[in-house]
Amino acid sequence: MTAKLKNQLHFLAEADKMKTVYRQTILADKSRHESDAEHSWHIALMAMTLFEYCGIEGVDLDRVIKMAIVHDLVEIYAGDTPAFDVKGNEDKEAREKDAADKLFALLPSEQATEWRRLWEEFDAMNTPDAKYAAAVDRLQPFLNNCVTDGHTWIKHGVSVDDVYRRMAPVNVALPSLWEFVEDLIRVNCEKGYIHEG
Amino acid sequence: MTAKLKNQLHFLAEADKMKTVYRQTILADKSRHESDAEHSWHIALMAMTLFEYCGIEGVDLDRVIKMAIVHDLVEIYAGDTPAFDVKGNEDKEAREKDAADKLFALLPSEQATEWRRLWEEFDAMNTPDAKYAAAVDRLQPFLNNCVTDGHTWIKHGVSVDDVYRRMAPVNVALPSLWEFVEDLIRVNCEKGYIHEG
Repeated sequence: MTAKLKNQLHFLAEADKMKTVYRQTILADKSRHESDAEHSWHIALMAMTLFEYCGIEGVDLDRVIKMAIVHDLVEIYAGDTPAFDVKGNEDKEAREKDAADKLFALLPSEQATEWRRLWEEFDAMNTPDAKYAAAVDRLQPFLNNCVTDGHTWIKHGVSVDDVYRRMAPVNVALPSLWEFVEDLIRVNCEKGYIHEG
Repeated sequence: MTAKLKNQLHFLAEADKMKTVYRQTILADKSRHESDAEHSWHIALMAMTLFEYCGIEGVDLDRVIKMAIVHDLVEIYAGDTPAFDVKGNEDKEAREKDAADKLFALLPSEQATEWRRLWEEFDAMNTPDAKYAAAVDRLQPFLNNCVTDGHTWIKHGVSVDDVYRRMAPVNVALPSLWEFVEDLIRVNCEKGYIHEG
C-alpha cells in the first residue's frame, strides 16, 4: 500500500469523528443532538430535493452536493461553533484554519486543494454554488427547530431579527420558499419560541 | 405553496428518521451505534476520497454520490436488516418495496423515478456505478469493525467465509485495496474477532 493511500484511509478513519461532533440542533424525535455527519447528509439530500426551486443561475448541483459533504469536516478538530455563540465566533476562523491545515494534510495535494476550496467557498458564500449550499444549510436546522418546539431558539434566547438574518440566504437562493419560511417565523414568534424583543 | 413543494418538504422531514435508524456498526469511539444518515454520509465521502483507485471503467462519481445519499432511504420505514440476519433477510425485499412505495410517493414522479432507480440499481449491484457504490458500502463498516475490536463480527459470530463473501465487491471495484483488506481479515482472525471454523 502506498503512503498516499494509507493517508487517505487515515483521513477516512478521522472522518468518523464527524459522528461525534454534536450540533445545537436536536433530532426531530428529540432523542439526542444531531451529529455533523447527519447534518451534512441531510443538507446534501435537501439540495437534491429542492434544486428545481433554486433561484440562482449557474448552480452546479453535483458540486453543491460535494460541498455539503465536506463543508463541516474542519469541525472534527475545531468543534461546532453555534451561530449564536458570540465568544466562540471570535476565534472560529483561526481555529478552523488550523483544523483544515491538519486534516487536509492527510490528502494528496490535488484532492486537498479541491476540498479546501469547496469549504472556503462555502464559508465565503459568494458564488452561486455556495449561495445555494448556504440556503439548505440554514433551512435544515430551521425546520428541525420548528418540529422540536423551538429547541435551539429557546435555549439561546434567539430574537426574530437573529432568525431573519440567519435565514436570509434562503430568500436569496430559494425565493419560492420564502413565504413559507416567513409564515413559520411568525408562528414560532406567536408560540413564544422566538422572542420579538 | 404548491402541493408538490409541500410533499417534498414532508419527504425531507421524514428523512430526519434516517438519524434514528441504527445500524449494527458502532462508532469508532464506541459511544453508540451508527445511524443510517451517518453511514450514508461516510460512504459518499469514501466514494469521493478513493475514486482514483476505482478499477471499473465508466463509473460516474457524481451519480455514485447521489446513490450513496439515497441508497438506504427505504430503511426509514423498513428498518435496517443486518447482512448476517438470515430471518430478517427472508422478507427484506417485500418490506423495502412497500417502504419505497410509501416514501417515494411523496416526491414528484420524475424525482421519485430517478431516486427509486438509484436505489434499485444499488441493490442489484450490476452496473459500474452500483459496483463502486457497493465497494464503499462494504468497506466502511468493515473498517469500523476493525477499529472497534470486531464488534459486529463477534456479536453475530461471523466466519471468515462470511467476511470474504461480504467484502467481494471491494475486490471487484477497488482492487488495489484488496491486499490491505485481506491483511486486515487475517489480523482479525488471529485476534479471534472473526472465527475460522
